[in-house]
Amino acid sequence: MELSLPRKALVTGAAGFLGSHLCRRLLEDGYEVTALDNLFTGTKRNIEGFLANPRFSFVLHDVTQPYWGQFDEIYNLACPASPVHYQHNPVETTKSSVLGIMNMLDLALKTKARLLHTSTSEIYGDPLVHPQVESYWGNVNTIGVRSCYDEGKRCAETLAADYRREYGVDVRMVRIFNTYGPNMHPKDGRVISNFIMQALRDEDITIFGDGSQTRSFQYCDDLVEAMRRYMELPRAEVDAFCARHALGAPVVNTGNPGEYTIRQLAEETLRLIPESKSKIVSRPIPADDPKRRKPDISLAKELLGWEPVIPLREGLAKTIGYFRAFVSERGSK
Amino acid sequence: MELSLPRKALVTGAAGFLGSHLCRRLLEDGYEVTALDNLFTGTKRNIEGFLANPRFSFVLHDVTQPYWGQFDEIYNLACPASPVHYQHNPVETTKSSVLGIMNMLDLALKTKARLLHTSTSEIYGDPLVHPQVESYWGNVNTIGVRSCYDEGKRCAETLAADYRREYGVDVRMVRIFNTYGPNMHPKDGRVISNFIMQALRDEDITIFGDGSQTRSFQYCDDLVEAMRRYMELPRAEVDAFCARHALGAPVVNTGNPGEYTIRQLAEETLRLIPESKSKIVSRPIPADDPKRRKPDISLAKELLGWEPVIPLREGLAKTIGYFRAFVSERGSK
Repeated sequence: MELSLPRKALVTGAAGFLGSHLCRRLLEDGYEVTALDNLFTGTKRNIEGFLANPRFSFVLHDVTQPYWGQFDEIYNLACPASPVHYQHNPVETTKSSVLGIMNMLDLALKTKARLLHTSTSEIYGDPLVHPQVESYWGNVNTIGVRSCYDEGKRCAETLAADYRREYGVDVRMVRIFNTYGPNMHPKDGRVISNFIMQALRDEDITIFGDGSQTRSFQYCDDLVEAMRRYMELPRAEVDAFCARHALGAPVVNTGNPGEYTIRQLAEETLRLIPESKSKIVSRPIPADDPKRRKPDISLAKELLGWEPVIPLREGLAKTIGYFRAFVSERGSK
Repeated sequence: MELSLPRKALVTGAAGFLGSHLCRRLLEDGYEVTALDNLFTGTKRNIEGFLANPRFSFVLHDVTQPYWGQFDEIYNLACPASPVHYQHNPVETTKSSVLGIMNMLDLALKTKARLLHTSTSEIYGDPLVHPQVESYWGNVNTIGVRSCYDEGKRCAETLAADYRREYGVDVRMVRIFNTYGPNMHPKDGRVISNFIMQALRDEDITIFGDGSQTRSFQYCDDLVEAMRRYMELPRAEVDAFCARHALGAPVVNTGNPGEYTIRQLAEETLRLIPESKSKIVSRPIPADDPKRRKPDISLAKELLGWEPVIPLREGLAKTIGYFRAFVSERGSK
């Protein structure tokens, strides 16, 4: 940095939905970006716009294997994140969380890199506290069909906290709540991509139960802003924050506290796709489906001076624009 | 078995407290035993009586590294299990749970061995349900000082459940509640070894808070009996049991539901060491110390036809006998 060389960032899961937005932002901020992905759920389509940029390098690599390089900052995003993907091979899902963070923590330790680990609201499971605060310990099944993701992510937090306490690694964590935007996988089975794809294809919009379960929806750019602010903070400030809040490690919720029912989301989606002939229909609720999820973001506000600024309607319109192009390119409507 | 060859068992953590009792039992039952231990908390003293047995082999090996061999049964016990040990190097504690079970699951998968994994009541954390049933999801901090053990063990359960669901590995799990007996590490910081050592040395017997927190105390031989019965069950019976109880994996609590306060335990210990000059004194409660812990063992009763039969006074007397010999050998009283 003193030599005015670009700062170097490593991003794992870089060809995924969030990874691609983070890469774009890091390139805009002048970074040299090394982008790892095993392309299991990520796709080169998400990063094709960066491939010609001399400050961008893509490496086809699985984070369960060690990776070596000299970076100023590491952003660990790699892990299948939607049930349809993470239940495809549950053992590999847990390995990508646990071995992935081990490899990145080891790399950060040996190279003194700063590390941002992306945890998830899923570590709260089916929460008994609402909205969720960082000090809430969660309510998670260890042996259920969602456990591969939830427990892998919980264990990753534990490892990060202990590498920080034991070895002094400068690791920071965000617990990401539902996030959406362009580059979402159209078949990831998540509610926003489902609804938009169904509406664009005039298919029934499926809600589970009566659709009264609530979710918070964070637009991707809001999250990336939080991540970048977090990584710019001096370590002493992060340490003081942990001490002040008696947090065992720096974890902050990042999400949009605006709460919508699944039914409201379906209706909003249909309003933004007025030509759609879709109808809203109900299906049985799947096993272990969390009933309510809403972040308390007081800590992120305090630490990062951050809160989401993009309203659902605006983010949804951008996302619909992306999926429209996707559908019309494929000629699949 | 049809050739009347001895059945082969692999025991990880074999030189630890429980591992040594299990090895003895397996040898008594006619097994050929391969005993792995990295000797971090285990000690050869615990297994020295078996070293001359031609059906016993000790291998100095760390379960975080793969191990290969052909076995009928694998008993995965390796992991530092008392706070003073598992907090010594938290990162290695988590690795011994998570990488250890991965290695044993991979071995079981490739060799079609039956696998018993020892989980723990610690996966319930500071339980909000009392007594604890297997369907209770627990209340565990992901980033605290005990998390390395709790979350590592939770993640190990998840991996075991998914190797079973995904790859058909015949894995069974016990959630072990407080267990005691000869061969406990005299400095493991656990309450029974602490109290006995303090009483034998005429030191103050330290209780945390007012000593009203309760624990259940299972004698080691009771647990080993449960483990052996579990491994003798045909797979179909275990599968039917899971289906009947809607359990995502075969997990049963093993512990003694008899509940004692810490103060009662201290008093009982002093009664059994009448020559002791020790007094009971109180200290502040440590962070994340679980308040109450008592197993519901209905499932183990149903599946294994098992319940603990050794009363606390009898088990405590045997344990005191062991520690007396230990102290007098060292001449440290």
